[in-house]
Amino acid sequence: MTMIGFEQPFKLNEGNLFKTYEQDIPVPQHNELLVKIHSISVNPVDTKQRLAPVSQKPRVLGFDAVGIIEAIGPEVTMFKVGDKVFYSGSSNLNGSNATYQIMPEVLVAKAPTTISDEQSASLPLTGLTAYETLFDTFGISTNPSDNEGKTLLIINGAGGVGSIATQIAKRYGLTVVTTASRTESIEWSKQMGADIVLNHKEDLKAQFKEHNIDAPDYIFCTFNSDMYYDTMIDLVKPRGHITTIVAFENNQDLNALKSKSITFSHEFMFARPLYQTSDMIKHHDYLQDIATNIDEGHYQPTTTQVINGLTTEHLYEAHQILENHSMIGKLVINVDKQ
Amino acid sequence: MTMIGFEQPFKLNEGNLFKTYEQDIPVPQHNELLVKIHSISVNPVDTKQRLAPVSQKPRVLGFDAVGIIEAIGPEVTMFKVGDKVFYSGSSNLNGSNATYQIMPEVLVAKAPTTISDEQSASLPLTGLTAYETLFDTFGISTNPSDNEGKTLLIINGAGGVGSIATQIAKRYGLTVVTTASRTESIEWSKQMGADIVLNHKEDLKAQFKEHNIDAPDYIFCTFNSDMYYDTMIDLVKPRGHITTIVAFENNQDLNALKSKSITFSHEFMFARPLYQTSDMIKHHDYLQDIATNIDEGHYQPTTTQVINGLTTEHLYEAHQILENHSMIGKLVINVDKQ
Repeated sequence: MTMIGFEQPFKLNEGNLFKTYEQDIPVPQHNELLVKIHSISVNPVDTKQRLAPVSQKPRVLGFDAVGIIEAIGPEVTMFKVGDKVFYSGSSNLNGSNATYQIMPEVLVAKAPTTISDEQSASLPLTGLTAYETLFDTFGISTNPSDNEGKTLLIINGAGGVGSIATQIAKRYGLTVVTTASRTESIEWSKQMGADIVLNHKEDLKAQFKEHNIDAPDYIFCTFNSDMYYDTMIDLVKPRGHITTIVAFENNQDLNALKSKSITFSHEFMFARPLYQTSDMIKHHDYLQDIATNIDEGHYQPTTTQVINGLTTEHLYEAHQILENHSMIGKLVINVDKQ
Repeated sequence: MTMIGFEQPFKLNEGNLFKTYEQDIPVPQHNELLVKIHSISVNPVDTKQRLAPVSQKPRVLGFDAVGIIEAIGPEVTMFKVGDKVFYSGSSNLNGSNATYQIMPEVLVAKAPTTISDEQSASLPLTGLTAYETLFDTFGISTNPSDNEGKTLLIINGAGGVGSIATQIAKRYGLTVVTTASRTESIEWSKQMGADIVLNHKEDLKAQFKEHNIDAPDYIFCTFNSDMYYDTMIDLVKPRGHITTIVAFENNQDLNALKSKSITFSHEFMFARPLYQTSDMIKHHDYLQDIATNIDEGHYQPTTTQVINGLTTEHLYEAHQILENHSMIGKLVINVDKQ
């Protein structure tokens, strides 16, 4: 099997330090699946992890894959050889920048059947992040009618996570307000289902007033937590809830949460697999719900850009595109296609 | 009617700047109740608000009262003249350091019938703080069996809030671990129902291991947020929830929440009345549940110290006792008794 990895953290301006590695195809143990990978996607977290210290060489990134199960461990109960599956994986396992990957079955679900692999590859990491944020941190109901009348503000609605979070929140009954500024990102966010798209280059509070929108019950920050910290606290409803997925540059004043009795979460999709929590199966369940909703036509995949062929050059190019911070939707690489 | 107040923020070492004020007994409007106050309690928040800028003179503190309704506004629907009630009120209303008080009915409930006024006076502010923390921020179930197997750690179990929070959490099915250090506070916390009392002067993580306790799902900090911030993050379960009621001295690193995907809340009981939220009635509902549980023998009041007679001297003395930070349970003042 072929993997693309690197041996030390590097910035893109140091050149392309991705390398190709060959090794034997591993044999799945216990509850593991061996997956032959068809398509992967590249997420902002890949670019951040490329800069982190490497504990085991080579470091193979990649947190999204669609592929076919080629072999299963003796304790696998949910899948069989030949199943097409999709998953995000974990930051402490080898990633999907490879032709094959070993993955514990609790982190995996059957892929949607009505869309292509390069479409399905857009969904796992961003979908899991959005599901955990909505259901585990905000604690919204799985019954859409319970959520009616509640408003979610998504900072950066057109990004990978924002695009799927908008659809999931709409599907489960929330009113969704997003932010964007370019014409194409505004259009895209509306296409994802946003009820209202605000311009993040202008005063958000004034726009809430203009549009006659109630203060949001929930705010989901997918862009620059430091820049939006005070604004989010100012905007959110008393006893409201703010979740971010973006690490802070600076320490913050937690007393700012007090007057409105605000709750703040740092969502991190890898927490369950990293800490091997007893409820890791939620990743399977959430992915399953995503596949069902895709196949029933409730969600649409978010792939906007496709690169054919998993090579060191293409991976380097993908990281460059992600680091531009102007990505709408998701970038996918088809592993084998030329 | 008589009120005890002050005209400028003051520290206790500046002397006793509490003064007595007389004014006409007000007439309740709309949904307001006029209550003749029997007993009040003094909370740490009184000592903090004594130091805050005074916007309207005199500033009358006091956030806990038990008394009898003497008159009702024309829109009152839940109470009648003669009802004995208890409540905490709000930091933007005149407080209970007075012989009479006006209070909107949504913040009020009928007092327990099986205990004395000086016992009931211990309950509203601490009880509401604990109910909001458990049900609104942690989002625990109102069905005790749903909460079984989940663990709450309360930092400072023997304080006013810790004492009632322990009882409520136990009543609703949680395992409760508290911290204390003096023999009498350890004993008191056990009496409140704590399953295990840890010594906060020794390493908490080591004690969790010694006692073979799983990582807590929830941590409720009622003492020195700065001192416990890193410890709580280290102790809590992945995807766990930390709530504090104590303002921070310093800014904090919110990225520390990320690896475990932790949720953090700043509970503030006055948020609902201050912002006039549409669900202010929850204060009524929670107080009602407290009274029912007291009368059914599930909760015990937490009064440990009683002063007879609401005078400027007694109020000053009460603030001195509270500022010692060694209070077990609650301090109550009977307004009229000599």
